[in-house]
Amino acid sequence: MSKKYVYLFQEGDANMRELLGGKGANLAEMTNLGLPVPKGFTVSTEACTKYYEDGKQINAEIVEQVEKALHVLEGEVGKKLGDPDDPLLVSVRSGARASMPGMMDTILNLGLNAKSVEGLARKTNNPRFAYDSYRRFIQMFSDVVMEISKSNFEAIFDKKKEEVNVKQDFELSAEDLKDVVKNYKIKYKELKGEEFPDDPKVQLFEAIKAVFRSWDNPRANVYRKMNEIPYSWGTAVNVQQMVFGNKGETSGTGVAFTRNPATGEKALFGEYLFNAQGEDVVAGIRTPKPISELAKDNPAVYAEFQKVADTLEGHYRDMQDMEFTIEEGKLYMLQTRNGKRTASAALRVAIDLVKEGLLTKEEAIMKVEPNQLNALLHPQFDAAQLKKAEVITQALAASPGAATGKVVFTAQRAKELVESGVKKVILVRAETSPEDIEGMVVSQGILTERGGMTSHAAVVARGMGACCVAGASACHVNEEGKFFTCNGEKFSEGDWISLDGSTGKVYRGEIATVPASISGDFATFMAWADEIRKLEVRTNADTPQDAKRAFEFGAEGVGLVRTEHMFFNGAERIKAFREMILATDVEGREKALAKLLPMQRSDFEGIYRAMEGRPVVIRYLDPPLHEFVPKTKEEIEDLANDLGLTPAQVEATCDSLKEFNPMLGHRGVRLSITYPEIAKMQTRAVIEAALNVSAEGKFEVHPEIMIPLVGDIKELKYVKNVVVETANAVFSERGVNLPFEVGTMIEVPRAALLADEIAKEAEFFSFGTNDLTQMTFGFSRDDAGKFLEDYYTKKIFESDPFAHLDTNGVGKLIKHAVEAGRSTRPSLHCGICGEHGGDPSSIEFCHNAGLSYVSCSPFRVPIARLAAAQAQVKNPR
Amino acid sequence: MSKKYVYLFQEGDANMRELLGGKGANLAEMTNLGLPVPKGFTVSTEACTKYYEDGKQINAEIVEQVEKALHVLEGEVGKKLGDPDDPLLVSVRSGARASMPGMMDTILNLGLNAKSVEGLARKTNNPRFAYDSYRRFIQMFSDVVMEISKSNFEAIFDKKKEEVNVKQDFELSAEDLKDVVKNYKIKYKELKGEEFPDDPKVQLFEAIKAVFRSWDNPRANVYRKMNEIPYSWGTAVNVQQMVFGNKGETSGTGVAFTRNPATGEKALFGEYLFNAQGEDVVAGIRTPKPISELAKDNPAVYAEFQKVADTLEGHYRDMQDMEFTIEEGKLYMLQTRNGKRTASAALRVAIDLVKEGLLTKEEAIMKVEPNQLNALLHPQFDAAQLKKAEVITQALAASPGAATGKVVFTAQRAKELVESGVKKVILVRAETSPEDIEGMVVSQGILTERGGMTSHAAVVARGMGACCVAGASACHVNEEGKFFTCNGEKFSEGDWISLDGSTGKVYRGEIATVPASISGDFATFMAWADEIRKLEVRTNADTPQDAKRAFEFGAEGVGLVRTEHMFFNGAERIKAFREMILATDVEGREKALAKLLPMQRSDFEGIYRAMEGRPVVIRYLDPPLHEFVPKTKEEIEDLANDLGLTPAQVEATCDSLKEFNPMLGHRGVRLSITYPEIAKMQTRAVIEAALNVSAEGKFEVHPEIMIPLVGDIKELKYVKNVVVETANAVFSERGVNLPFEVGTMIEVPRAALLADEIAKEAEFFSFGTNDLTQMTFGFSRDDAGKFLEDYYTKKIFESDPFAHLDTNGVGKLIKHAVEAGRSTRPSLHCGICGEHGGDPSSIEFCHNAGLSYVSCSPFRVPIARLAAAQAQVKNPR
Repeated sequence: MSKKYVYLFQEGDANMRELLGGKGANLAEMTNLGLPVPKGFTVSTEACTKYYEDGKQINAEIVEQVEKALHVLEGEVGKKLGDPDDPLLVSVRSGARASMPGMMDTILNLGLNAKSVEGLARKTNNPRFAYDSYRRFIQMFSDVVMEISKSNFEAIFDKKKEEVNVKQDFELSAEDLKDVVKNYKIKYKELKGEEFPDDPKVQLFEAIKAVFRSWDNPRANVYRKMNEIPYSWGTAVNVQQMVFGNKGETSGTGVAFTRNPATGEKALFGEYLFNAQGEDVVAGIRTPKPISELAKDNPAVYAEFQKVADTLEGHYRDMQDMEFTIEEGKLYMLQTRNGKRTASAALRVAIDLVKEGLLTKEEAIMKVEPNQLNALLHPQFDAAQLKKAEVITQALAASPGAATGKVVFTAQRAKELVESGVKKVILVRAETSPEDIEGMVVSQGILTERGGMTSHAAVVARGMGACCVAGASACHVNEEGKFFTCNGEKFSEGDWISLDGSTGKVYRGEIATVPASISGDFATFMAWADEIRKLEVRTNADTPQDAKRAFEFGAEGVGLVRTEHMFFNGAERIKAFREMILATDVEGREKALAKLLPMQRSDFEGIYRAMEGRPVVIRYLDPPLHEFVPKTKEEIEDLANDLGLTPAQVEATCDSLKEFNPMLGHRGVRLSITYPEIAKMQTRAVIEAALNVSAEGKFEVHPEIMIPLVGDIKELKYVKNVVVETANAVFSERGVNLPFEVGTMIEVPRAALLADEIAKEAEFFSFGTNDLTQMTFGFSRDDAGKFLEDYYTKKIFESDPFAHLDTNGVGKLIKHAVEAGRSTRPSLHCGICGEHGGDPSSIEFCHNAGLSYVSCSPFRVPIARLAAAQAQVKNPR
Repeated sequence: MSKKYVYLFQEGDANMRELLGGKGANLAEMTNLGLPVPKGFTVSTEACTKYYEDGKQINAEIVEQVEKALHVLEGEVGKKLGDPDDPLLVSVRSGARASMPGMMDTILNLGLNAKSVEGLARKTNNPRFAYDSYRRFIQMFSDVVMEISKSNFEAIFDKKKEEVNVKQDFELSAEDLKDVVKNYKIKYKELKGEEFPDDPKVQLFEAIKAVFRSWDNPRANVYRKMNEIPYSWGTAVNVQQMVFGNKGETSGTGVAFTRNPATGEKALFGEYLFNAQGEDVVAGIRTPKPISELAKDNPAVYAEFQKVADTLEGHYRDMQDMEFTIEEGKLYMLQTRNGKRTASAALRVAIDLVKEGLLTKEEAIMKVEPNQLNALLHPQFDAAQLKKAEVITQALAASPGAATGKVVFTAQRAKELVESGVKKVILVRAETSPEDIEGMVVSQGILTERGGMTSHAAVVARGMGACCVAGASACHVNEEGKFFTCNGEKFSEGDWISLDGSTGKVYRGEIATVPASISGDFATFMAWADEIRKLEVRTNADTPQDAKRAFEFGAEGVGLVRTEHMFFNGAERIKAFREMILATDVEGREKALAKLLPMQRSDFEGIYRAMEGRPVVIRYLDPPLHEFVPKTKEEIEDLANDLGLTPAQVEATCDSLKEFNPMLGHRGVRLSITYPEIAKMQTRAVIEAALNVSAEGKFEVHPEIMIPLVGDIKELKYVKNVVVETANAVFSERGVNLPFEVGTMIEVPRAALLADEIAKEAEFFSFGTNDLTQMTFGFSRDDAGKFLEDYYTKKIFESDPFAHLDTNGVGKLIKHAVEAGRSTRPSLHCGICGEHGGDPSSIEFCHNAGLSYVSCSPFRVPIARLAAAQAQVKNPR
């Protein structure tokens, strides 16, 4: 049986978006609602896919269906395409499943040729209109279908205006335009070596193919990449009877929203232009009027439009963004869709629609894109100043927010400047390392030359809520020289730059910022999300400050404390840690660890207090030791002096720690196996802090101790024994007890495969999806940036597996591990603490996979709360 | 119900080896065969495990069962332990599931105390014998059970000999020995603070515990590690009535084999000593006589022993290794087990036993340990010279064989010396890299300071069949200085050393080698293995020479050609390859690749010819490009000159290729995606070579093209398109066609998880278990050596997952991938080409998992053939 590729508008509906595209589906829906929509039909997205599969050919089956639909359309309209007396003219427009405004192509006035243009002139009694339409069609068709640059035609058109000495297009007469058309055709033949096609059928199929082709044009590819729209979707093509807004003063065209897209206020919002086609509005030659003036200019049409708008909003139960044309006093609807809006408008609309009884809370929370909340949580640039600012480069939008400040190149210098009273600095580094933490904390924002979305700078910045632009490969940072160059220009210490962490743009100079404003709507809306969701939301927090902020953002616990970050927090700490690394025996290590104990204990106390008795998961030392060793000559000498060693000895130890593939090296549980004394110290800090805070009498602390990088039950068992013995020792010293749990990260594929075994010892699981993604794909996240660009270009990957969880591959391991783990230990609680824990699509997967919680950086907590609620609405559990 | 932990000999049999240990099971079997075995019982290996579980305590249940068994034994023998008139004396001996000679402890003459020694003296009418037995017991018990060094007692004993002025032990009188016993007891009390235990029950249980403890002693741990015996097995304890070979000239003790363990010749082979206990034979004070002389000394006993030996060999259907004691003319059997034998003896015995009708071919092939064949395939040291040689260090036995030669430190120098007539050089490097290939080829053996069993040196050496000792961390190699130091000693260029790649030993000086001798038995035996096995055996071969050798060793195809190795084979090749790397555009790369095409094509032709039409799997470029860049300043300058670049430009390109985690970096299929022109060139080489060799008319070549590191079907699809288009282009140029396949390595966990999808494009799978192991565990094989030692010490791992496939974790992925792949494509052939393909236990897994073939280095081919046959016998498919 043959497949249906072409649908008349009356054959479709709004639910057929995948097949008909957004525009086509909504034109069908409006048609069936009885609204004034010009007749037409849609060639489906499947026809587009087929076109590509067939090597960019439209097959006979589709041709036949298009011709049949055209025949029906001609019958409905009572005109024929190419009729020399009264020709049907059509528009051919793209329409993908997701809105991609301006990315693909449109052809208007199709069906005109040497004969039908005369018929149109007679029928409308307006030869000027007919020839103007014809020259527009030739120009558009040549540009879009034949890839002849518009400038060729513009030159002819301008020459004619000069000849007849007029300034404005509309001053040209019908005869002038006729002449323009003649010259257009001569130009066309000159460039293409053949006549401009006169056969309207040829015009139609060429136009349809051009729209299909435009799906793959460079700007569409870039837009899809930015907006994560799959290439495989394809676009539909809408063929629709032309209506004309340019038939004089009783005609016009416009766009409008049912509510204000900036504020959410309920009132028609938009603009229109009399005697114009859509393209004129876009061209910006004349200034459109606010839609409210239509009420005065043409009260009847305004009233009708208001009614249509109300009908559409009531029908779609969402704010609508509409396009319309008025042809000689008659209103036609050309498009409607759910309107794009700012974050604060989105909250207000959602809340109002519930108040108006149009939506339930469950429906309302689906109306806000979780990532939109970002805009409410971070400072933004002053819009006016931003307009004038100059972009010097654009790189990865690694951590949102807006930052402005003076450039510095070392963490040390950042601290010095801020301590000396300079309020705003931007830390610029080739890449950051854990030693830069203190400098990052005092900086407004961080810019790095290298590194991706999960580089150290990006991860830490997101954790702190600091603005970060990463991987700015156009910048070459010379840290010693205290400058960076970008496209040949030099920026030195003290120069002002500004970063937009939400777009990845880097601006020259200072730009004022406006602080985050969380309105009352935010609280109302988030309370609904919390009512609905089943997935718990915890936070990744390495300091009491982080924990406190996350708590304010609604975190229900800490899902990950990266204990190693604490060791960089201050010179004394890193010194003691390095002393531990350089110790040659257990005693030496224990001596150094004893210095770290009180510091770590007090950090834990701070975090426990911030979380007020909610769960806190503490991960034991994870990174390889070489991440902590001194790097500069001075540092090495200082350390050698402190420890009574020679610099050569220090260097030799540091060298011996180097690894070929550190990511797969001596880290995580492997460190605790080699140096159980580290796990002992950390256990003592965790348990003593818990006893101390519990003793304050406000709440009980039940720490969850997490062992990273486990791949075999015996690894976990070994370290768990160390933990339990140490904890028991502390309990008997103190004469008091408290419950605690020992669990594991699941981040090595083998652990996921053998989760049933591992759950015999693990009291909880937390999926470390950064590492799990690295190992499951065999991608080093530090190196993959280099070749993943080729993957996107060649359409092998549609998105970055470090940003969005690979539900197909990595997800399979997670699902298996949850099931297998719970088959051994039904009460096993499972969370996720990788970067994916703050990504809405990954959160939806986590909900569906039955995880107990997600954990993300503090600023992602509200986003995760909303995403979790949406997941519950989509798939109740 | 209580568990049975203690078995009387008559309650056991040879099949109960796991429970009773080898010695216990065979004592039981001999008892039930009616052979003259002293009565006794076995405390099971489960009791040992329980002992450790209970915190090194023997629980009440086991105590009770031992006492009950002892009671039965006393009844059978008619004597009582500790009886002051006629005491039962027992031996307490360890006996693990696998033979661990000399590794664990034994106590003889247990049951003697101040009273029973007098009874024994009276009963035997031999006070000297009684007191000699008593002083031996005290010494042994104190040493083994109480950890009092023997030297304490030897001093007393020697002092007594001095006092009474005698030279030989047997010259001491009963009175002297009584005095010795007295002083032994004084010494014991002095050292332990308590009396030597008189209660025979206390003695017995302390002895049993000591044997259990000895399972965990350092030498047992080392032996187990070397022989890969799991720690979890535990040892059994055999308690057996003493018989005495030291009761005068009609008594004696000895050991014998039913066949010659060096040659396999069928004749009793062994030695015995009159008037001696087993320990005297070991001590080597007197020289034992050949067993054949027993026929003259005591024909009746000899005849009886011969009969027992025949019975045992017939019963066990294998060559036996027996221990016996003659007490006053009566023969007792103390042990029998399948005898250890040389590789050539093993073949001869197996073949003879089939000829004698004792074994089927299937049974015979189970009698040879596959790894034993190694000894037949490589040269060995002259045994006489080896005895005198001095070991300077011992490291990883990375590739078997014996090598002797002059030390050189660079590949270049190795070539020079060999070209100048020096026949034997040993290449010593900190570590090798692909650039060292030519030097490795001309060297007798390779010694490296760093790197494990799968380091470059090890892998390449095994591939070439060259001897290699790797990871000799006691050696510090100074390549520029042309020397290495080892334990303070310096070895310079030109000094002779010798390597044993089968033991990892490094010797000072030159040691003569004897060439491999593959006897006719080898061919006969291997033909049986081939008849039986179902698993195909292919080889990993990178050159025509390798392929030819493997073919001679019985390879049925090439399972892996690592095409990149060809690029290092000669200065011209590496130069062209580097030109390709340094090219800045496709044209530049294509120009360089065009130079590589004829070289690669001719290598493929050579390999196809060597394999005579059997399948050849060619893997496309796999390693990251930075492995190929020049490293020294001169090389960089030379290359810059050749290419008309500045050294700085060359260096910048090389630097830009550096990666944080190269193993997870830009390699494998990822290279073909970025640079499809490489895959095009390789396809052209593969297909043109196949057409050329097929055109010779001897056989048709059907190449199998393998894409490495695939993790997603779209990666494979992209490259497969390039391959198919290029192949079709070649076919149409030549006007002739041939069938070929495109498949993939399964070495990224994600590929295994999504094997059903990937099989839509892949026409075959080959498991790259080196990488799959790395990524499944998250272990870098280059770095894991550092911490895996801690894993062995702390009993977290029993063996190296890079040497023996982790059937539990990695194996789960393989099984899943085979099933899922075949669910999509039932005809999918699946192989393995990682290092595990040559490891017998891994091969057994591959057979069970339903793989079609294993592929291993040429010298492992015979081993794999035998292992595959054994797998089929164990688990027919």
